[in-house]
Amino acid sequence: MQFMHSFEELLSGFEDYFSHRHFPEAPGTLYDPAESFLGMGGKRVRPVMCLMGNELFDEINPDAYPLATAVELFHNFTLIHDDIMDKAPIRRGQPTVHARHGEATALLAGDVMLVAAYDYLNRLDSRYLKKIIQLFNQTAREVCEGQQLDMDFEKRESVSLEEYMQMIGLKTSVLLAASLRMGAILGGAGEGNQQHLYAFGKKLGMAFQVQDDYLDAFGDPEKFGKQVGGDILANKKTFLLIHALETASAGGQAELRRLMQGTEDGKVEKVLQIFRESGIDSWAMSLKNNFLEEAATHLEEIAVLSNRKRPLTDLMHYLVQRDK
Amino acid sequence: MQFMHSFEELLSGFEDYFSHRHFPEAPGTLYDPAESFLGMGGKRVRPVMCLMGNELFDEINPDAYPLATAVELFHNFTLIHDDIMDKAPIRRGQPTVHARHGEATALLAGDVMLVAAYDYLNRLDSRYLKKIIQLFNQTAREVCEGQQLDMDFEKRESVSLEEYMQMIGLKTSVLLAASLRMGAILGGAGEGNQQHLYAFGKKLGMAFQVQDDYLDAFGDPEKFGKQVGGDILANKKTFLLIHALETASAGGQAELRRLMQGTEDGKVEKVLQIFRESGIDSWAMSLKNNFLEEAATHLEEIAVLSNRKRPLTDLMHYLVQRDK
Repeated sequence: MQFMHSFEELLSGFEDYFSHRHFPEAPGTLYDPAESFLGMGGKRVRPVMCLMGNELFDEINPDAYPLATAVELFHNFTLIHDDIMDKAPIRRGQPTVHARHGEATALLAGDVMLVAAYDYLNRLDSRYLKKIIQLFNQTAREVCEGQQLDMDFEKRESVSLEEYMQMIGLKTSVLLAASLRMGAILGGAGEGNQQHLYAFGKKLGMAFQVQDDYLDAFGDPEKFGKQVGGDILANKKTFLLIHALETASAGGQAELRRLMQGTEDGKVEKVLQIFRESGIDSWAMSLKNNFLEEAATHLEEIAVLSNRKRPLTDLMHYLVQRDK
Repeated sequence: MQFMHSFEELLSGFEDYFSHRHFPEAPGTLYDPAESFLGMGGKRVRPVMCLMGNELFDEINPDAYPLATAVELFHNFTLIHDDIMDKAPIRRGQPTVHARHGEATALLAGDVMLVAAYDYLNRLDSRYLKKIIQLFNQTAREVCEGQQLDMDFEKRESVSLEEYMQMIGLKTSVLLAASLRMGAILGGAGEGNQQHLYAFGKKLGMAFQVQDDYLDAFGDPEKFGKQVGGDILANKKTFLLIHALETASAGGQAELRRLMQGTEDGKVEKVLQIFRESGIDSWAMSLKNNFLEEAATHLEEIAVLSNRKRPLTDLMHYLVQRDK
């Protein structure tokens, strides 16, 4: 079997499996909010990564669909709970679950979504059920740790680049990495291949986050889709701000700290000016490219015919544009 | 093997297994609150019921301890999240997790506790892993449904006795029933025996809730351990209030509705007076005894030597005093 499916083909196969009701009808006060949140979309990157991880090694196992569904439900569980914790009013262009239905119902809707994820996992063949649940649980724990660190960092004066990378690794990257690896387990991959694929996913996640932080500051407002400078206005500790606070000139660092105290007119432009003067923009680009190169190296190390890797290379370019 | 362990012996065996750290050290901002909540105690009724369900049919399977731990962690997860939803300041005589550490951390601490529960389940032998996870998930879903119904009912003018019993069945009884049944699965029980044991647990849970509602109104303040009349002051829809609103004299019903509007002096005593005049106290006693008799009938139907049932009979009397 040499034929490999594209992202779009895998996505369409996943949507066919996924797009039905996942929860009982009653009580509607609990399940309708959960159900309608799932219907609001999202890019479905993680479930597609489960399928890709599988197909890298073998034809798609029918169990890959419930696995991918479990991962997507888990991801949505984290979004609902994170939005409560972050008091976020909007997600995917719509009011968040707690904004619409209250915090108590949003909390419970997240809880039943996590339970539903385990229900889908429980459909997997016993041969790999334990292995998958083990990796799934480890990942779930790490994602929670990442969210806690993110909240801890918000309250702190300063955060080192190393700490930030650890947090992003937990909050964002491990789920991408685990999605690929759980798929690979279903595909019968050996331990060494699994480890390289996992490392590929982690590095890709890091590159994606650098890009996300970069675009918030330097992105084209028309293409970016959200307010440019939002992180700066919120004093969010990003790759850019953390590195600027460590490497800008003494004057630049002092000015940054002063700007972070308030919300004066032109704050975004002034912060961007310091970023540019300190070369933060090109530093971020090269950091992203370093992560991408590390990802590519792990991908190369996976012992399968290189034409099987094409969808993962495409995915890398879909998620992170090089040198942009 | 004729020798059966008592509640205290099973509890002590469980505590030996359970009383160590369940979470990693870091980040302490997440795991210390989770860990210390587990250390605050609780009666550990549900994990002991897992062990009893097992020992009813066979010697205790080593897997019964991780199972019992999963159930106890699940129960504590529900307490942490329920306390957030109910905005409860105190639990087990101490500030609740969210009161001490903030809602965001409490929410996450609950989440990691649920994940930890699945980690313990994943230690079970593959022979019964799927069956147990299936029942565990169904139960988890139902407990969430019960909590949502409880919140829905709070906002409603009136709730029927049938609706209240359905809610209590979900919120309280199914976890007791499932604890017994999951233990019975490890003990190799057949389907019919499992069903009777599950039904025993459900009826026992109902009897327990009737007693809890009764004691809040008519209990001895010195023995009850919490404020007598607390439910009445909070206008909580209990077995007693719901039945009184359905069966008291027209004047009594009108007076109850009037008393529920405010917090006048002597409110508790006035409500109790109406309860007594309408015979709500003796009705509650007979309702409790009916549930206990139904529980006992299911216990009798279980096809094992009757001396094996002794710990469950003792449990029934430990949880619910007859005719009290």
